[in-house]
Amino acid sequence: MRLIIDRLIDKIDEKQNPTCVGLDTNLGHLPRGLKDSLDIKTAEEAAKAILKYNMDIIDAVYDIVPAVKVQIAYYEMLGIEGLSVFKKTISYAKAKDLIVITDAKRNDIGSTSAAYSNAHLGKTILGSYEYEAFPTDIMTINPYLGTDGVQPFLDDCKKYGKGLYVLVKTSNPSSSELQDLVLTDGRRVYEATADLVLKWASGLKGAYGYSSIGAVIGATHKKIGESLRERMKGIHFLLPGYGAQGATGADLAGMFDENGRGAIVNASRSILSAHVKAGTEDYAAAARAEAKRMQQDIWGALKAQGKV
Amino acid sequence: MRLIIDRLIDKIDEKQNPTCVGLDTNLGHLPRGLKDSLDIKTAEEAAKAILKYNMDIIDAVYDIVPAVKVQIAYYEMLGIEGLSVFKKTISYAKAKDLIVITDAKRNDIGSTSAAYSNAHLGKTILGSYEYEAFPTDIMTINPYLGTDGVQPFLDDCKKYGKGLYVLVKTSNPSSSELQDLVLTDGRRVYEATADLVLKWASGLKGAYGYSSIGAVIGATHKKIGESLRERMKGIHFLLPGYGAQGATGADLAGMFDENGRGAIVNASRSILSAHVKAGTEDYAAAARAEAKRMQQDIWGALKAQGKV
Repeated sequence: MRLIIDRLIDKIDEKQNPTCVGLDTNLGHLPRGLKDSLDIKTAEEAAKAILKYNMDIIDAVYDIVPAVKVQIAYYEMLGIEGLSVFKKTISYAKAKDLIVITDAKRNDIGSTSAAYSNAHLGKTILGSYEYEAFPTDIMTINPYLGTDGVQPFLDDCKKYGKGLYVLVKTSNPSSSELQDLVLTDGRRVYEATADLVLKWASGLKGAYGYSSIGAVIGATHKKIGESLRERMKGIHFLLPGYGAQGATGADLAGMFDENGRGAIVNASRSILSAHVKAGTEDYAAAARAEAKRMQQDIWGALKAQGKV
Repeated sequence: MRLIIDRLIDKIDEKQNPTCVGLDTNLGHLPRGLKDSLDIKTAEEAAKAILKYNMDIIDAVYDIVPAVKVQIAYYEMLGIEGLSVFKKTISYAKAKDLIVITDAKRNDIGSTSAAYSNAHLGKTILGSYEYEAFPTDIMTINPYLGTDGVQPFLDDCKKYGKGLYVLVKTSNPSSSELQDLVLTDGRRVYEATADLVLKWASGLKGAYGYSSIGAVIGATHKKIGESLRERMKGIHFLLPGYGAQGATGADLAGMFDENGRGAIVNASRSILSAHVKAGTEDYAAAARAEAKRMQQDIWGALKAQGKV
């Protein structure tokens, strides 16, 4: 079984595109004309409209991007119907040969983390029957509980060829409040987390020297991201914060290694709402144009640094 | 609107019982005879059996406990069917006049936290229509992202009369890896988190001096819990780790205030699997007996310290 990180890097190389499209879809992203015509009155109708929107976006970008990131919160808020669409969205993206990252930031003590891992990475065993609740390729987790809360996820990554991105330094302004605090040994808290991730990642190194256990580093923190690139050899970065949160290709190039590898940049809002900026109702075409612009911005920045 | 924390404390006082029953239910908790007779082959059948189990447990304890804690991970691993049972379990517990704590440890940047908050505390707005996905009374969240990731939850607590328990020091052994690290100002990371919780809690103080914004403190850490009781005046504690994880009433009494208030102790596995220890298939009666034993253990410890 080829490691998921190798499959992801292959796709990034092939498409010359280290980005993913974030499907944080909610009704606010739908063009006004479409939304008005649908006159949505139930969670079921909302979920149906969002599935259609997601499928159109996937159809518009699947040949130029390697992966999508699906943010479960926006489906959870539509309840059972929403989570059904979450599952269908993942399944549709996989059928289009995209790598799927479930952004869930789950975390708990070991016995409960095992349940989350069953839900998203592994299988739920029911006697002689096995069930896959929301099968994805890679998921995000939160490190606050330490190793025993992470171990069940690591075990399933090994067993089922899956991957993780562990929160290290998040993109939001308040990330400084806990993550930037300075320890007596001189490290910041996010560096202590980074060192834990290095330990967790050690068993799952692939052909390109990267592990299937990666890290979430906010694209909004240029210098921190660059120093973490040095510190975290062999750790693949998921970089959220491009576009709507403010980061550009030039900010990000330093978070890639000397071969232009080692990271994937996510944009959600800037792609899902590209039609607003473009002044069109054709959200699929606008999303594709924005995905292309983003690829050129980032690939161009990597070229400018001689990394690709 | 009476604050949820006041409603919880009223119920605890009335029942002389600062404990809640954790419904971390999975098929492993069902008595062998029952499980064999059901011959479960699908997630739907599993979910149905778990709903019956939960309802029987709730029926067996609702008159003697103030609250239940429902761990969403065990329902998430059964997919759509599981989450439907999660919702029905909450609804059944509320109908029995229990306070419901959703243990979800959700966390994200602000815009996404708002979606989680809509899902569990507030409402999802669909044009002129409002939808409640998994409406609960109190939920647990993870603090790693800081204030802007927590604010949407705080806003909904104010608006809808809901509450939070924020992870501060968790019950698992590896909690030390990040949470116990020492900062240059002398605080541990969990103390820095505690100080943030104090700030977040300030706007929601109730009649007993406690805020609807509380903290999760592992019952397994006696000394830390006692020192946090001193540090965190007015913060209500959710104390997991009783029973299966090892803590006893005597370990916990110091995490209550001088009036025997300020905390609620959770036990999940020791109650859900009480029938195994009791050597019976009658899981409901065994759960009730264990819930009573737990009440007596903790109330007795509070009496011994002259707190009640």
